[in-house]
Amino acid sequence: MPLSSQLLEEGVQAFSKLPGIGRKTALRLALHLLQAEEEEVVDFAKALLDMKQKIQFCQKCHNISDQEICSICQSPARSKQVICVVESIKEVMAIENTQQFQGTYHVLGGLIAPIDGIGPDELEIASLIERIEKDEVEELIMALSPSIEGDTTVYYISKQLEGKTIKISTIARGVSFGGELEYADELTLGRSILGRLPYKQS
Amino acid sequence: MPLSSQLLEEGVQAFSKLPGIGRKTALRLALHLLQAEEEEVVDFAKALLDMKQKIQFCQKCHNISDQEICSICQSPARSKQVICVVESIKEVMAIENTQQFQGTYHVLGGLIAPIDGIGPDELEIASLIERIEKDEVEELIMALSPSIEGDTTVYYISKQLEGKTIKISTIARGVSFGGELEYADELTLGRSILGRLPYKQS
Ligand SMILES: [Zn+2]
Ligand SMILES: [Zn+2]
Repeated sequence: MPLSSQLLEEGVQAFSKLPGIGRKTALRLALHLLQAEEEEVVDFAKALLDMKQKIQFCQKCHNISDQEICSICQSPARSKQVICVVESIKEVMAIENTQQFQGTYHVLGGLIAPIDGIGPDELEIASLIERIEKDEVEELIMALSPSIEGDTTVYYISKQLEGKTIKISTIARGVSFGGELEYADELTLGRSILGRLPYKQS
Repeated sequence: MPLSSQLLEEGVQAFSKLPGIGRKTALRLALHLLQAEEEEVVDFAKALLDMKQKIQFCQKCHNISDQEICSICQSPARSKQVICVVESIKEVMAIENTQQFQGTYHVLGGLIAPIDGIGPDELEIASLIERIEKDEVEELIMALSPSIEGDTTVYYISKQLEGKTIKISTIARGVSFGGELEYADELTLGRSILGRLPYKQS
């Protein structure tokens, strides 16, 4: 049933477009803002626009950042010689939450998926190889999904590094096969980082 | 654990302020917008600001409206002689969803609650009495919460109408006692409107 106010209807539809928000919840959220102070609604809209428009991505690891180089890459406490390779910023957050990892990250921005037209050039792989050479990286920890795309990506990167003295490991599969890294509990994910395995090309 | 980006943190906190949205859900929603097209985020913010800043309240019944007089009050199919008195626009929506009611509404904007400093003058009671006289209203259906505040409000309004030939009824309590009207299922709420009872002053 459409609402009597088109403006409210559009507010409800805006919330409904967000993932996991049904029409009932969207109506509850829209009515909350409708009854809130105008300043609160302006602040809400501004926070989201600022986030979208001002956020940057670290020039080194491509994690989200408020500066050109992110706080992890800038920290002297984090090893530049151990890089954890992940698909997206979600995995950086999930691994940071475990507080088990003292190295740095490299966010690929996706996985190799020829069917979807995503080749190595669409991802931050060249910049990873460059970093490895420049920073004399000793170990790459591959924390990618246990999928065909994840395996293909690990294989491709390891091929690019053939002949170099660098250790390549994959995270231990405490995380259930087929499970998304970002939803793994912190303990499991932290342990699977600590118990990582050397990668062997098949 | 705070996020590495203050801008993202503020986006997450903005969502967290909404009712029923925890930090995990807020993070999921913020990341969704972060990865969406900029236009989508601008449209989202604009829909909410437009809703808040442009929405009006019907000058007759105080329901939300995109014009001075709402579509319900404007409709020739809706009886102006039967008024359903409700606390807020949420109850208007809930009752409209039942499609059982062919009269019009009057939104009080709250209930009499002396403890919270809400007296009759803070509510749209004077305008209700005025409407009753002007439109020769035949019946008032009191669809207020079954609470001390609801009962006090019904009593106050009925006192104001003493001596007038107007039928005052309260909705049938198919809705569970203590249950919020807006959460009642449509069938129950629709039936309780049809099976309304004449109000008797105790
Ligand atoms: Zn970085
Ligand atoms: Zn109206």
